[in-house]
Amino acid sequence: MNDDSERYLLTPGPLTTAAETRSAMLRDWGSRDDDFIALTRSIRERLTALAGASASHTCVPIQGSGTYAIEAAVGTLVPPGGKLLVLVNGAYGLRIQKICGIIGRDSAAYEVEENAVHDPQRIDEMLTSDPSITHVAAIHCETTSGILNPIAEIADAVARRGRRLLIDAMSSFGAIDLEVAEAPCEAIISSANKCLEGVPGLGFVIAETAALAECAGNAPSLSLDLHGQWAGFERSGEWRFTPPTHVIAAFDQALAQHVAEGGVAGRGARYRENCATLGAGMRALGFETFLPKRLQAPIIVTFLMPSDPAFEFRRFYDEMHRRGFVLYPGKLTRIDSFRIGCIGHIGKDVIERALEAVRETLAEMGVASGAPLLSSVNPAAEGAPPSR
Amino acid sequence: MNDDSERYLLTPGPLTTAAETRSAMLRDWGSRDDDFIALTRSIRERLTALAGASASHTCVPIQGSGTYAIEAAVGTLVPPGGKLLVLVNGAYGLRIQKICGIIGRDSAAYEVEENAVHDPQRIDEMLTSDPSITHVAAIHCETTSGILNPIAEIADAVARRGRRLLIDAMSSFGAIDLEVAEAPCEAIISSANKCLEGVPGLGFVIAETAALAECAGNAPSLSLDLHGQWAGFERSGEWRFTPPTHVIAAFDQALAQHVAEGGVAGRGARYRENCATLGAGMRALGFETFLPKRLQAPIIVTFLMPSDPAFEFRRFYDEMHRRGFVLYPGKLTRIDSFRIGCIGHIGKDVIERALEAVRETLAEMGVASGAPLLSSVNPAAEGAPPSR
Repeated sequence: MNDDSERYLLTPGPLTTAAETRSAMLRDWGSRDDDFIALTRSIRERLTALAGASASHTCVPIQGSGTYAIEAAVGTLVPPGGKLLVLVNGAYGLRIQKICGIIGRDSAAYEVEENAVHDPQRIDEMLTSDPSITHVAAIHCETTSGILNPIAEIADAVARRGRRLLIDAMSSFGAIDLEVAEAPCEAIISSANKCLEGVPGLGFVIAETAALAECAGNAPSLSLDLHGQWAGFERSGEWRFTPPTHVIAAFDQALAQHVAEGGVAGRGARYRENCATLGAGMRALGFETFLPKRLQAPIIVTFLMPSDPAFEFRRFYDEMHRRGFVLYPGKLTRIDSFRIGCIGHIGKDVIERALEAVRETLAEMGVASGAPLLSSVNPAAEGAPPSR
Repeated sequence: MNDDSERYLLTPGPLTTAAETRSAMLRDWGSRDDDFIALTRSIRERLTALAGASASHTCVPIQGSGTYAIEAAVGTLVPPGGKLLVLVNGAYGLRIQKICGIIGRDSAAYEVEENAVHDPQRIDEMLTSDPSITHVAAIHCETTSGILNPIAEIADAVARRGRRLLIDAMSSFGAIDLEVAEAPCEAIISSANKCLEGVPGLGFVIAETAALAECAGNAPSLSLDLHGQWAGFERSGEWRFTPPTHVIAAFDQALAQHVAEGGVAGRGARYRENCATLGAGMRALGFETFLPKRLQAPIIVTFLMPSDPAFEFRRFYDEMHRRGFVLYPGKLTRIDSFRIGCIGHIGKDVIERALEAVRETLAEMGVASGAPLLSSVNPAAEGAPPSR
């Protein structure tokens, strides 16, 4: 599906995009021009609708990476006197906690292992025992491991105790169902460059309009002031500061493809097929996944590092790269592993060719099997509640 | 020069880019890949060299708009106990002051009229009388009016009193000489999307390495932490957070064109010709510029609003747009005016066609002359010291 046939990015972003999406960047736009204002408005409306939130929420795009959007949401929606409970089971939860420390927002963490999910009962207890907690932050799909957190159950627990939920849906939005009717929340934060298959350079926050309207002056930043950005759009339709016009035009095109593919259902089906093909193919080569199947989101798969001494990850990575497949060199925080993404403008055919490249590379390296040292890292995790 | 012949952006950014620059966005890049790491390093090195600062400074690119880079520089380089004197003669100086207020940095302003420059003697006095001032922020070309501030004289005054200078060179860098030998400074801040003719989505700070190294923990933001971003590059060559890969690839191509055109000298010569052609052509139609010629940077020209009651700016703007020329609908803070940019991938031929479109539009509107009500807004400004 990548027409330049240079390489496929099997990473959780930047990822492989469609040629049509990239071609949408061949034109220059005036950012204060009526047609660009209309384009911006249309993107905002389509994103809000994707969350089933047109009646209650508004979408505020933010220049920069997804982390910028997270920081803007936390800094604006959690007031200076508020307190954020962060549900941590990977690096992105830890990052939200780190942001709180830097921007001066009180926070607490409920941390579990990277292959476990949070217990709604425990969330309930923490909220009951600490009335100073005003907000809860949860990660929908924690990209660190690829785990799918049970967001509806979390939202239910948070709503029951009358607190406000911020959902980091960075690597899930657009491919895994997330609607505010099922997961009531004050904000959903994501990026153009994950499951919506745009190019990187733009994040967005789908925020409850009534809540956002009360947040003037909260943000400890001019650039990352979600309220200021929103007020700018509401006033004139224009961006407060120069927008990445080409990135936005590409996003518009990417959203049109998302619709053409059948929206969240269609996109999710393709990713699930990619993920199933990848998992089965790798298991046939002896590899084992870090997560049990029922906790695995169809976004990115973590494989345990093979125990065969002939397996060198750097060489594996380079050989795969030479064959046109870019893997994700990052690691889990604790377990020796590597990751392969299932998202982006790729289908089962590309995954099958990637598997063939893995086979060739293992043979070349003289690796008999991808089997890891430990066949199951944390059997206790099997007892965790099922995710949706 | 714009191959799609759709329109020319006569604005100070986003601006018209070369087809080659936009075409560089047709490929996807893995952001942690060796070739992308090499591309990033090369861009950083070329930018530092452009400022004649390779021996003393390091370039730190920042995802987002130019304002993000300004906020990152101020928040990181001015420590929590520091104080910034901002030299204001337009909206961008005011914006720096606003940032200080929001992020909690003490500041003072030395404000002059939008068509006047700052007196180095007065700067000296202010620095002498307030020893708590640690840094000074100056705008090289204030895009509000198009005025060129005498940056070498300012730098001299700041250095004489042992303070540190931050230069906002957003709309000048790459077309107007700015080298640290002539204008000693702790930082130069600019964007990919002005005189270097990249696409929007990336700012950068060329910061004194020794000074930056002492700034760990200063920034009141994770995303806009200049030290953290720099440390990330130094550690692995990688971006801390997903970079706008396509925008960066376009910037690489734009920098190659900058070299091919003869660097700052070549680019500056084309812009000066554009500006002279625009000024002469508009004056021939009765228009008058807000600034005297010797204060005018060849970046953007502010024209006083014509007094003819048949002249309606909105209609003028729309008619020019219909003819393929996008003007800048923004205004000065005080004087009724409009602006036309001279920068971007356009030459004298485009300016001449734009002038022809102005002539046609005036005729269609029944406007006999572009002459304003007042022929000289502030004759006193003529006595200001010459700029470089």
